[in-house]
Amino acid sequence: MKPTHIEHIGIAVKDLKEAIPFFEKVYGLECYAVEEVVDQKVKTAFFKVGDTKIELLESTDPEGPIGKFIEKKGEGIHHMAFAVENLAEKLKFVEEQGVRLIDKAPRKGAEGLNIGFLHPKSTFGVLTELCEDPTK
Amino acid sequence: MKPTHIEHIGIAVKDLKEAIPFFEKVYGLECYAVEEVVDQKVKTAFFKVGDTKIELLESTDPEGPIGKFIEKKGEGIHHMAFAVENLAEKLKFVEEQGVRLIDKAPRKGAEGLNIGFLHPKSTFGVLTELCEDPTK
Repeated sequence: MKPTHIEHIGIAVKDLKEAIPFFEKVYGLECYAVEEVVDQKVKTAFFKVGDTKIELLESTDPEGPIGKFIEKKGEGIHHMAFAVENLAEKLKFVEEQGVRLIDKAPRKGAEGLNIGFLHPKSTFGVLTELCEDPTK
Repeated sequence: MKPTHIEHIGIAVKDLKEAIPFFEKVYGLECYAVEEVVDQKVKTAFFKVGDTKIELLESTDPEGPIGKFIEKKGEGIHHMAFAVENLAEKLKFVEEQGVRLIDKAPRKGAEGLNIGFLHPKSTFGVLTELCEDPTK
């Protein structure tokens, strides 16, 4: 299912107001968008590095997935995402290979992408997202 | 210190003999190199995805950094690496910004790169590596 590139790396942070200026000042990256994803209970901030985005994730609810992640493990890398074409087919293919899916079918993610998550128990502990750009 | 791209994502795995065929069969990526980095007590396997590499890391010693990481946290994403130019200057710059360095000066990493690690306590829990290609 060869991905074209790493679409993004998701990093859980406690406070975007601290993290955004750090990524801008220390790494020289520009935050080009901040977006709330209500059903994921997160506020996200995006930076571009080559082909790949860094997506900072601040929880808007301690009971949401990022809130629970930070409570359990602290801040840090939360997931990585591959850019793929034909997402629905790719999810089916990886499931046929024995991978447990979190999302059996594509759903809407940040930035208008269609997304699906694979379960980290099937993927060497790496919470892995597949992303498809529906405009391409 | 704007990085040009994400050089690689490092993933700690227990057994390359299981992980390599998974990344090849399920994700359709090709393992183009396996290399032992003796001073880091790891065996590494590399895959290319767009501009970025995935570096799988198997510990060769339970007391090495990857052995300890897996014992404490299990398999999963271990670090991310930015590609930069003028690594020595960049390490100095980030230190001046208040970031704690693991490596005060560049040292040799896998694939002939010069590398330096930033301490995750300074970088929102993300073990962050800066890499410079000395041939460029």
